[in-house]
Amino acid sequence: MQPTPRIEGIVETILYVDDLERAVAFYRDVLGLTAQGGDRERFAVFNPGGRQVLLLFRRGATLVPTAVPGGIIPPHDGHGPHHIGFAITHESYEPWKEKLASAGVAIEGETHWPRGGRSLYFRDPDGHLLELITPGIWPNY
Amino acid sequence: MQPTPRIEGIVETILYVDDLERAVAFYRDVLGLTAQGGDRERFAVFNPGGRQVLLLFRRGATLVPTAVPGGIIPPHDGHGPHHIGFAITHESYEPWKEKLASAGVAIEGETHWPRGGRSLYFRDPDGHLLELITPGIWPNY
Repeated sequence: MQPTPRIEGIVETILYVDDLERAVAFYRDVLGLTAQGGDRERFAVFNPGGRQVLLLFRRGATLVPTAVPGGIIPPHDGHGPHHIGFAITHESYEPWKEKLASAGVAIEGETHWPRGGRSLYFRDPDGHLLELITPGIWPNY
Repeated sequence: MQPTPRIEGIVETILYVDDLERAVAFYRDVLGLTAQGGDRERFAVFNPGGRQVLLLFRRGATLVPTAVPGGIIPPHDGHGPHHIGFAITHESYEPWKEKLASAGVAIEGETHWPRGGRSLYFRDPDGHLLELITPGIWPNY
């Protein structure tokens, strides 16, 4: 009997950006994410931890099917201001506030959650709402 | 000395949908994700595995700041067709094709990647491009 298929997590989380170079600089220099591929025209790939990737696509560059050696990637695209939440430790909450302040990134909001977690909200250069979240917000985080 | 702040993964991946009830049925019944909160008006929360959540927001419901007991969530929103990629095992690739076929979900594409992974592309009810990915696509997956 075949196994019942199941999802094993989210691998690819995506944002669409107007200026790929500007976005790459922000995610690399301000958020400290490690670049691990992509090109300078269509997309950039970051490793935010574990088995996950954050893909930044240049808006409008993926509106038609993209041929790759092993097949075709169907079209996709998006307009924001989208929202993504990143995990941080409790201990790094205040250091993150200082890091963002020193980078000239305005804090747009902070939230305390009933489970004990805290969230810090700010914008990336495209206006996407980013959130840094300490554990204690969802049943599994 | 304070620790250098770092990102510890992506917790929240988001899609905006026109019909929340329809989307919840799809992610629960077709993809088999476990619901773990939300409401019927603004958003739904799914557990795709690990410490991650998939949040479905009703499009237009988050355009103004949202007051929660512990603070304010700044506005966000998005238009697709957005893209998200989920992890699946090699063994479940064919069972997933059968599952999607039995649910009447058309396969829009398949890709073989140089690292050995495979991707299966299809759409959710809002036209978002979903991808089921076996390991062997990125350096860390």
